[in-house]
Amino acid sequence: MKQDIDRLMQERELTAILIPADHNYSPALDYLVGHVHITGGFALKKIGEAPVLIVGIMEIEEAAATGLTVYSDNQFGWAEIRASDCENPTAEFWATCLKQLGVEAGKIGIYGVGELNLLLAIQQYMAQNHPQYQLIGEKAPTLFDLAAMTKDADEITRIRSVAERTVSVQQATWDFIQQHQADATETVIKADGSPLTIGDVRRFILIQLMERGLEDTGMIFAQGRDAGFPHSRGQDHMPLKLGEPIVFDLFPRERGGGYHHDTTRTWCIGYAPPEVQKIYDDVMTAFEVSLEAYGLNKPTHLMQEAVLNYFESQGHPTSRNDPQTTVGYIHSLGHGVGLKIHEAPRITHLSKEDTFQVGQVITIEPGLYYPEQGIGVRIEDTFYISEDGSLISLTPFRKDLILPLF
Amino acid sequence: MKQDIDRLMQERELTAILIPADHNYSPALDYLVGHVHITGGFALKKIGEAPVLIVGIMEIEEAAATGLTVYSDNQFGWAEIRASDCENPTAEFWATCLKQLGVEAGKIGIYGVGELNLLLAIQQYMAQNHPQYQLIGEKAPTLFDLAAMTKDADEITRIRSVAERTVSVQQATWDFIQQHQADATETVIKADGSPLTIGDVRRFILIQLMERGLEDTGMIFAQGRDAGFPHSRGQDHMPLKLGEPIVFDLFPRERGGGYHHDTTRTWCIGYAPPEVQKIYDDVMTAFEVSLEAYGLNKPTHLMQEAVLNYFESQGHPTSRNDPQTTVGYIHSLGHGVGLKIHEAPRITHLSKEDTFQVGQVITIEPGLYYPEQGIGVRIEDTFYISEDGSLISLTPFRKDLILPLF
Repeated sequence: MKQDIDRLMQERELTAILIPADHNYSPALDYLVGHVHITGGFALKKIGEAPVLIVGIMEIEEAAATGLTVYSDNQFGWAEIRASDCENPTAEFWATCLKQLGVEAGKIGIYGVGELNLLLAIQQYMAQNHPQYQLIGEKAPTLFDLAAMTKDADEITRIRSVAERTVSVQQATWDFIQQHQADATETVIKADGSPLTIGDVRRFILIQLMERGLEDTGMIFAQGRDAGFPHSRGQDHMPLKLGEPIVFDLFPRERGGGYHHDTTRTWCIGYAPPEVQKIYDDVMTAFEVSLEAYGLNKPTHLMQEAVLNYFESQGHPTSRNDPQTTVGYIHSLGHGVGLKIHEAPRITHLSKEDTFQVGQVITIEPGLYYPEQGIGVRIEDTFYISEDGSLISLTPFRKDLILPLF
Repeated sequence: MKQDIDRLMQERELTAILIPADHNYSPALDYLVGHVHITGGFALKKIGEAPVLIVGIMEIEEAAATGLTVYSDNQFGWAEIRASDCENPTAEFWATCLKQLGVEAGKIGIYGVGELNLLLAIQQYMAQNHPQYQLIGEKAPTLFDLAAMTKDADEITRIRSVAERTVSVQQATWDFIQQHQADATETVIKADGSPLTIGDVRRFILIQLMERGLEDTGMIFAQGRDAGFPHSRGQDHMPLKLGEPIVFDLFPRERGGGYHHDTTRTWCIGYAPPEVQKIYDDVMTAFEVSLEAYGLNKPTHLMQEAVLNYFESQGHPTSRNDPQTTVGYIHSLGHGVGLKIHEAPRITHLSKEDTFQVGQVITIEPGLYYPEQGIGVRIEDTFYISEDGSLISLTPFRKDLILPLF
């Protein structure tokens, strides 16, 4: 939680944290200072102190909305540094700000999202010209990954709200498809007789999200063979067909950047062929196996291993018994969800460190993929772990495979 | 242009370029390999060779759509490295791939967007454990900034299409507002008598963009005092009022990431108070001054200086005669537009290197800001520089200040 940041800084011997602002949404910046629309400058937090923001004149008003202390870049000489023949003005500016804000030396943890190339140049300049400042990274899970892994009550409230709105979009999408009919070729058609395409459905979903204050971050609506590739997003021109599995993975966030919800359903419109039904039944059993394997403080990899055991017992290839396989069960069972769509903890047999803890928000998402048979099935809910250690679903939406047309 | 990449690599003595994939849209990755939905792995380009992609099993299908050679991460031992107790598996994996793909040593340019913290850890691990590979950054303009600064015919075609669609959204927004009425308090109202809010207009715009295959990247629709802060995005709850300037800055891109268009209009609904009209007239004159200052191969800063001279002659504070000012003319005159919304060249007095060149796509966007008087005015078109050196507007949309209601 946020209150852990100072302790985590101390463990890492960080004197300060610096997060550059960027055109991209930056979860770490949002986590540290609250939601703010700034595209330049940076946030600086000294250990034991509240963060401050240093921004260009144009973004002072936006930065001030955080309630934090805000400095204009020109208060620290940005215009002069930029106009000088300094080899790396941005790096020189960082060093100037650090000094003027009372950071004389030490390890500076650099976080956030940005242009990797520019950062390497800054790091090199700093090492050569201001070696009293060491710009520090770490592999995942980083300080922010660990702090953000457990959510406080305010965060759970926001995530619950995103979850409710996402489920409402799932329901609206179900209803939208259901009001169509099919023709003799088993193609779903609109009132004018033209095919209902994946693009039509995606547009409908985008509007539904928008009307609820959410934004898409790359939904999957993939049918048939495409459904058999877990990260294929689906092709807009493709008409919806009866009896072909559709993987619908929706993971929107608050508009402009914020908390996510992550949920997947697999639908067969009209009817399900027996081979799809069989795969679906196995995935649903794996989902139950996951819930039975849950326990507070238990290592997360045990849940994945329970699912691997089950799928392998049913004869499905898995990435445990064949790391090269592209069919069967080929991804991790789940992940944390928050300001980032993929957060700590991980639920995989490849990582042994993570345990289930109060305040985590996680997905459980078993799936099976056989693209050459035109089959992909995944079922995913998001859960949070409550104060008493219960695993509470945030995705109370029907898991029916068959979506019947009226 | 893309054909410049090898020459730019040679100038920098880069053996290879490596661009990690990320959940965020990565303009450099898109530029190098084409549009691809991958969130892990990386692209590698050796000098003089086509790029290749190394991705997880789940994203092979998406990666293959680029037409490039694609490798699964497990072909290079990712599963084993990840399961080992290696201090930084990602960095070790990069080193393994580099070697197996025939890069024995040298400078590796790292580009793209991603988690800054993770990159610093990779860089440190590489320096200690695989010092034959130097991960290289550079300050802006980077290799990709320079290559992308001039667009080829295919890029211009795509940018033109985004421009046409954006202008059509501007027109639709104008028409949408115009069909409303105002009440006795000069509030714009809907048919049911309730106020038309900025949020209502923003939702309308978002749908219009979506229907045209575009996505918003943070539009500004800011009224009154908010319009006086160049980067204030506007407040959704605020009703539209007659006679208050609205800055409408729209800079969408192709959905899922791609080329942008950037345009701003300032509207007063119903009527314009004389003090707003005066500021607007000065900005429109500055726009004409900009066009007159244009010349192929001329340094871009001369255009900004012409505008600064004009605004200062009219008594407006500028960031040249007072770097601390928060009123008057306080930003650069323009910037390149492409896969990134802000690209090279810059049009500012603070940077003397850039010149106008064939193939550039740039904005021209003079503005004046007096928030305490409730005034902000900015007018912005996007232009490209054609083969014969002409500056061609891509934003053929009316620049009227007054938006009359029917």
